[in-house]
Amino acid sequence: MEEEIVFTDKVRIYDTDAQGVVHYAGYYRFFTDAAENFMNEVLDTDYPLIDTDTWFVVVESEAKYFMSAKLGDELMVMLKPKLISEKVLRFDFEIYIKDKLSCAGHMTQVSINKNEWHAVPMPQKVQEKIKALSSKRHKPKQ
Amino acid sequence: MEEEIVFTDKVRIYDTDAQGVVHYAGYYRFFTDAAENFMNEVLDTDYPLIDTDTWFVVVESEAKYFMSAKLGDELMVMLKPKLISEKVLRFDFEIYIKDKLSCAGHMTQVSINKNEWHAVPMPQKVQEKIKALSSKRHKPKQ
Amino acid sequence: MEEEIVFTDKVRIYDTDAQGVVHYAGYYRFFTDAAENFMNEVLDTDYPLIDTDTWFVVVESEAKYFMSAKLGDELMVMLKPKLISEKVLRFDFEIYIKDKLSCAGHMTQVSINKNEWHAVPMPQKVQEKIKALSSKRHKPKQ
Amino acid sequence: MEEEIVFTDKVRIYDTDAQGVVHYAGYYRFFTDAAENFMNEVLDTDYPLIDTDTWFVVVESEAKYFMSAKLGDELMVMLKPKLISEKVLRFDFEIYIKDKLSCAGHMTQVSINKNEWHAVPMPQKVQEKIKALSSKRHKPKQ
Repeated sequence: MEEEIVFTDKVRIYDTDAQGVVHYAGYYRFFTDAAENFMNEVLDTDYPLIDTDTWFVVVESEAKYFMSAKLGDELMVMLKPKLISEKVLRFDFEIYIKDKLSCAGHMTQVSINKNEWHAVPMPQKVQEKIKALSSKRHKPKQ
Repeated sequence: MEEEIVFTDKVRIYDTDAQGVVHYAGYYRFFTDAAENFMNEVLDTDYPLIDTDTWFVVVESEAKYFMSAKLGDELMVMLKPKLISEKVLRFDFEIYIKDKLSCAGHMTQVSINKNEWHAVPMPQKVQEKIKALSSKRHKPKQ
Repeated sequence: MEEEIVFTDKVRIYDTDAQGVVHYAGYYRFFTDAAENFMNEVLDTDYPLIDTDTWFVVVESEAKYFMSAKLGDELMVMLKPKLISEKVLRFDFEIYIKDKLSCAGHMTQVSINKNEWHAVPMPQKVQEKIKALSSKRHKPKQ
Repeated sequence: MEEEIVFTDKVRIYDTDAQGVVHYAGYYRFFTDAAENFMNEVLDTDYPLIDTDTWFVVVESEAKYFMSAKLGDELMVMLKPKLISEKVLRFDFEIYIKDKLSCAGHMTQVSINKNEWHAVPMPQKVQEKIKALSSKRHKPKQ
């Protein structure tokens, strides 16, 4: 099992549309905020421009909407990182409003050499930190 | 098989991000434009605020990215409508740049009574028009 | 003189465009965040949907750009509220990156009755709280 | 006097917010669309990434809001270019909905060398084309 990391966010007026709730594509802002916070704060890594040669580019995004988020709602955004391969990193997200699931989805990204624009292994320290996160929870309890 | 309808769009500077190409969530703008154009121009229906009582709300969105779209790229956006039930409408999308597939995905939406915020059958004329579109291609060739 | 209130914000990937820096219209997100934070946290008021009858609608926005903000930049956003009349509230903003001015501008908003969509005095408590803020600094030093 | 060029645009669901009308910062999308259309279609020039060395960067933006635009509104966007100097180009905009003024504003941009990030004269052909546009209307009537 992977470690889940929790961030908070807030629905802003520009996230909403004329239906009075968050626009369906607006939830990806919350995914992006959590992804950036995770990489910056937990992995201590720039993102998605990792270093002068390496970028993460998104190859897949998906969201299911269960309960509309409204202006001012305080969001709890859970992120679960999963190292698919040395080149591919997936983030699963769940967004809660007061313990009710509002939205769940994921974003999959590939590490590329930005000059060649082809897939390369992500920096070793990123891989190791993500593995370390997972293993923290995996230690057998004695 | 369902009818595919084709629209054109264009990558704007605000669709792009610091990676120099369209931001992953920006492709949903092209999906939305095509959905609105389809409902407005082909079905002659307001969208997503269908009428004074009925709205379409998105319950699922998804995109896979194959080739990054760049500033100024002319897009061919193909939309394929599919009536899942009398309450649920799915649009599948493919975005092409000069015959190369850039992005494919879908958006699923439910017809709701906006006052009660629960699912209701979509207006009869919307259902019929979508069925009519599909059947156009289904006529047996002789 | 009016009180200045300071908020922090951060440049996100979706704020940037293909020029590698924040898109000119993206700075209004930082203005909006500061405006919402000010109303929510300092005035303890919902915003821009003040109450069931009253909304603030923006009638003027303006920004001058001095130094481009880049992905990940930590922003210091200064907001100075000014009560123009009992119906009109202006916010002046300055955005700093490490003590260098990046952007300055303002947003002017009118209090309206949302059903009639015409200007009305903003709620008394909003007016009073803004006046109280200003007067804090105006007390003659002795 | 300068030539005015007219473009059409349309209010999309993502332009609106929970007030049911276009978000104040959303009008800058219409300004940007008109600016890009003008440069692409009228001046036959890429924009805002003019060529491999030269970019236009916005140094000032401003909008006044007179009548809220609603979902589906067809917009007439008038653009008036003004060459302030060989390095500075200003666009004035007026957005009309069925002959009623909805929004007016401007955007001022400076031509820069993107590598040095300092102001340079914009390409000669851009200057000449804008001058030519203006002079078309200046020919003395006989």
